[in-house]
Order: sequence, then structure tokens, then C-alpha cells
Amino acid sequence: MAHEKPIQLVVMVGSLRRGSFNAAIARALPVLAPDGVTITPLSSIGDFPLYNFDLQQEGFPPAVTAMGEAIRKADGLIIVTPEYNYSIPGVLKNAIDWLSRLPNQPFAGKPVAIESAAPGGYGGVRAQLHLRHSLVFLEAHTFNRPEVIVPQVNTKIDPATGELTDPATRGFIADQLKAFAAYVRR
Amino acid sequence: MAHEKPIQLVVMVGSLRRGSFNAAIARALPVLAPDGVTITPLSSIGDFPLYNFDLQQEGFPPAVTAMGEAIRKADGLIIVTPEYNYSIPGVLKNAIDWLSRLPNQPFAGKPVAIESAAPGGYGGVRAQLHLRHSLVFLEAHTFNRPEVIVPQVNTKIDPATGELTDPATRGFIADQLKAFAAYVRR
Amino acid sequence: MAHEKPIQLVVMVGSLRRGSFNAAIARALPVLAPDGVTITPLSSIGDFPLYNFDLQQEGFPPAVTAMGEAIRKADGLIIVTPEYNYSIPGVLKNAIDWLSRLPNQPFAGKPVAIESAAPGGYGGVRAQLHLRHSLVFLEAHTFNRPEVIVPQVNTKIDPATGELTDPATRGFIADQLKAFAAYVRR
Amino acid sequence: MAHEKPIQLVVMVGSLRRGSFNAAIARALPVLAPDGVTITPLSSIGDFPLYNFDLQQEGFPPAVTAMGEAIRKADGLIIVTPEYNYSIPGVLKNAIDWLSRLPNQPFAGKPVAIESAAPGGYGGVRAQLHLRHSLVFLEAHTFNRPEVIVPQVNTKIDPATGELTDPATRGFIADQLKAFAAYVRR
Repeated sequence: MAHEKPIQLVVMVGSLRRGSFNAAIARALPVLAPDGVTITPLSSIGDFPLYNFDLQQEGFPPAVTAMGEAIRKADGLIIVTPEYNYSIPGVLKNAIDWLSRLPNQPFAGKPVAIESAAPGGYGGVRAQLHLRHSLVFLEAHTFNRPEVIVPQVNTKIDPATGELTDPATRGFIADQLKAFAAYVRR
Repeated sequence: MAHEKPIQLVVMVGSLRRGSFNAAIARALPVLAPDGVTITPLSSIGDFPLYNFDLQQEGFPPAVTAMGEAIRKADGLIIVTPEYNYSIPGVLKNAIDWLSRLPNQPFAGKPVAIESAAPGGYGGVRAQLHLRHSLVFLEAHTFNRPEVIVPQVNTKIDPATGELTDPATRGFIADQLKAFAAYVRR
Repeated sequence: MAHEKPIQLVVMVGSLRRGSFNAAIARALPVLAPDGVTITPLSSIGDFPLYNFDLQQEGFPPAVTAMGEAIRKADGLIIVTPEYNYSIPGVLKNAIDWLSRLPNQPFAGKPVAIESAAPGGYGGVRAQLHLRHSLVFLEAHTFNRPEVIVPQVNTKIDPATGELTDPATRGFIADQLKAFAAYVRR
Repeated sequence: MAHEKPIQLVVMVGSLRRGSFNAAIARALPVLAPDGVTITPLSSIGDFPLYNFDLQQEGFPPAVTAMGEAIRKADGLIIVTPEYNYSIPGVLKNAIDWLSRLPNQPFAGKPVAIESAAPGGYGGVRAQLHLRHSLVFLEAHTFNRPEVIVPQVNTKIDPATGELTDPATRGFIADQLKAFAAYVRR
């Protein structure tokens, strides 16, 4: 195990809220990763304009180009997202729409893991289903299971620090990261 | 028939591109509507910022408030949208996410019809499936069929005028509008 | 309220197992229904053969014809189903496929409510999403919300009697039935 | 290329009709496969009973056990299916439900490609989306693209012989098989 190839993963967060529960999960990932796996946050998808082909024709925004390059250079991508209205947030879909138009489309052939969290009882499970469909079109290699679905996420974040402290959640995230790392290394 | 209650419908377009095929379809709707049905465009969803709960806390953007009010006052809503990456555009989902947070949520109980168009062979059929899921959460009364799905839409728009001229497409849109008007009047 | 039109609902169960948790929920419905609402079980979908158009050509099986007639005569339908492999059970879909081919298709214009239960944490929420898509094609008037999703259903059934005893679950089912009755009566 | 490892694929057909268009596509696959790829039909899913856990408790039906073993021994699986009511046929889902309960679940880690055909204009595209969700739960490695979607399939089958003759369809199926073989060999 000590000799396994080091891998670099990047993380995209689907919410823009400063106190985002999903951002808290994303911040916990580097520590929960197995040995040899480095996890780095991507920039905020809040830096992207609303997608408009006319705007694209004038040149891709630098934030889009930079994120595409960061995804391409990574060995794999983790998307951590809330669910809005039984689907992924528009802001996350907007980021995907921009990135999908880049030359040398960055999701193609890229291993992708999905994590979702919500205050409700179903933890974003519906959003994950929709996101998987988009990733088929984008030719990502989407990791199946174990899934990371975090219901009642508000009870699993320390209100004082805003960090993910729930041991069970940390445990199954660590399990997914280990399995995803093996999937990336295949 | 002459005595049927006049109804007012509004139209939301899921693409921001100036030459949008879906915007062309939306522009054709008023003329294709049956007697007694008035169809009015909503403002552009391009006027909405990216959804962010922190921003919402500072007060809903005026464009969001105004569109919510226009939907509430209408007897029904038509959403005309392209498909991006096997789902609805992020910009459309972003608009729905904003509107869904308004007090007196404007989709609740509102009759909604869906139309989609795409240059490819499947005309946005996958986007329609995802959109229907969001509308369940929003308690819209989503119209079933006849569906309006317009594949190869680029061949159905007059390149000189940018208007929808294909007679078959105009015909099945008129059929949907007639059936949707009956659904709204129930 | 005392003068509201009495309505008759029928229930279809998506599992064939004798000790089915979903069948237990279905059995609880008549007692949980509001005044003026009668709920009657449909026959078992286990009486249907595997769908085969060649078989249909020889004549619809009597079990299919009878269930179609029972649905047509009812004011509304409740489907209570487990989730298998992130979708509805094949046996339930098989029943729907047979019924959908009947002349005077029985789901058309019929109010339909969905309930799902599963031993896992997500209670069949994914199955509900798929079922809603089929019901669009079938032109059912599918009720939106409140949804009935029963996670950890095995803890909510009395192991001695096999009946649904969990008060919270009984409560939100009663809430749905009341709202569905109003939807049916519109 | 001449030295690539020979691979064995098996094909499951989602329709039971004798003159099934999808069965015709399945029959065409062995000839359309690239060198080194052998494609063999699985037995009919029509030999499976309706799924019932009580029946499973008495022992898996021999047809289920045999198909599970055939899938396990293969290097990959191709599922060729029609769409019924905007989803996969109940008979196909029923087969998947049975197979999913086998010890040493046969879809786990198995490369799977999807093909669909329908007389309508959308070629089963909606069914593919639902099938992909089930395959996530089953931990299959589902191939993304190129997709095989065959609209108006009735015009692409020779009515005299019942065989797939449309050159364009044969061409894009061959393209998928070549790409799928590379995916299986990774």
C-alpha cells in the first residue's frame, strides 16, 4: 500500500452560501483522505457568470478556463452539493454548463465522485440522480458506491466552528474516499 | 366556446442567447394560442444573480420579486427550454431556485406546460424529465400531454428572420396550447 | 364538510411478498382515510403474466381487464410500492405495462397518489421519481405533495401482527389522504 | 490490434415479443462486433417468474441462477431494450430484480452497454436514463457513449426477414461495440 501512486483530487462545491454545510463537508475531505491522496478545493463556482453562448463567443471567462484546467490536471473530481427543488442547484449546473463547452472538455474520462448533504431526511439523493445523468453526457467515469448522502446535515456540523464533526458521517466519507481512490487508480 | 373564460399565460425562456431557438418558439406562442388565451413573455432570467442564500437574506432581487408576481397573477406558465448536458440549463434552474424561495411560492398550484427544443434528434426530452421532478417539489400542476418536443430545431427556424416557420411544429404547439388552456380552465 | 361527495379510491401494491411492508401500509389506508373516502384494495398484480405483445394479441388476461375496470370505476388510485434497485419493482412496472395497453387506458385523467416504504433510510424516494415519469406518459393526474415516504419501515410495523402501528407514519399518511381527497374532488 | 485479448460479451433483450425489434438488433450484434469480440445471447428473461421474495426463499429459479452465471463469466453485458411508458419494460426490470438478489451479485463491477430502440421518435432515450440509475445501485460499470438509440426502428428492420438492415444504424452500433470493447479491456 505504501507504494501506491499518489493521486490528486479536486473538489467542487455546489452551494455559494458562506456557511454552507456542503462546503463544510468539502473542507473535511483532505483530512479524511487515505494516505497518498491529496484533495484540493477548486475555486468558487460563484465566480462564473450565467451561461450565455453569446458571452462564450467573446471568449471563455478566466474563472471557467482556470477551473477546467484544474479539473484536467487532477486525477479525479469530487462534487459536493446540496439539493434544490429535487435537483442540483442551478449554480452548480451553470458551472457544469460552462465547463462542458470548453475545448478538451474537462469531464471526459475523468473519475468523479458525488457527495450530497441536506437538512432534510433524504440528503440530496434526488440531486445525485440528476447529476449522474449530466455526467453520462459529459463522458465522466462516475463512481458508483459507496455513496455519500448526508441527511439532517445541520445536526452533524458543529455550530460553533462550522466544521463537520459527526463521527459516523466522517467514517462513511472516509470509506468512500478510500474506494474512490482505488477506482481512480485502476 | 365563445363564452369561455379568457386566460392569461406567461412564458419563461431557458436560454439567454440572443438568437435562441427556444426564444423563437416562445415568440411564436401568442399567435398560436386559441381564442381567449393571451400569452405574455416574462422578463429574462438573465437578470437574476446566481442564487446564494446570503444574498437572499439581504432581500430578494427586484427581478426575482417581479417575476414571482407575474407568475402568481397569471393563470398558467409555459416554460420553453433547451437541454444542456441531459438536463435543464443551469440558468433556468437558477431562476427556479430563486423563485422557489419567495414567500407565497409562485409555482404552488400553478398550471405549467413544458416545451423544449434542441438542434439534436431528441429535442430536449431528457431536460423535460428533470424539470418535471423539480415541479413536483414546487407543487405545480404540470400538464402532461401532448408534449412539445422540437428536435432539429435549427431546421425549423427561418434563418433570415429567426422566427419559427415550420408548419408541423406550429401545428403541434397550437394543439398543446389548446389542450393546456382546457387544463388551466378546469 | 359533511356534505362532500363520497369518493372511492383503489390501492395497488407493488410487492408480492406475503409479509410485504407495503401491503401492510395499504391495509392501513381504509382506517386512515377521512370521512367520505372509501379505500378498496385492487387484486394482486401477481396474477398478471409477464407482459408480451404476442400474448396481448390473443386477448388481455382476465386479471388485467378486471383491474383496468376497477381503476376506471374508481375516483382515484393509490400506488404503494417498495423500491428495488433505485426504481420501481419490475412486477409493478409489468402491471402498469399491461394496464397501459388496454383500450380506454385506465390511468388517463385518473388522480394518482404515490406512497413508498423501504427498510433503508430513503424510503423508496428514487422509485417515486421513476414512477412519476411513467404516469406522465399515461396522462394520470399525479398528486404532488405531501408525499408519503416511509424509511426504516421494518421498525414501523408490529412484528407480532404485521400491521402498521407507528403513530407518526399513520399521521402523515392520514394527512396525505385528506389532501389527496381534496385533489380528487376538485 | 491483432494481439488484443479476446473478449466475450453477452446480450440481454428487454422484450418478449417474437418479432421484437430489439431482439433483431441483438441478433445483429455478433456480426457487427470488432475482431476479437464474441457476442452471445443470454436466455430469455421470459423464463423468469414474477419476482417474489417468498419464492426466492424457496430457492432461486434455475433460469435466474443460469443467467447470473452467464453474466458473471462474461467480460461484459449489453442490454438491448424497448421503452414502455417512459421507462424500461417491467419484464426487464423483473429480470434485473431477480439477478440483483443472487449471491455474488452478477452486475457488480461488470461493464454494461445499453442500446434501445422504439418505433417512436425518441428511441427509448428515457428508458436508458432509468436503467442507468438501477445500474448505479448494482455497481455495474455502465458505458457512457457513444449511445445506441434507434428511433423509428420499424423502418430499419427488413419486414421480409425481420433483420436489422439499416446501414446507418448498423454503423453506429459497430462504433459503440468498438468503443465498448476498449472500455471492457481497460
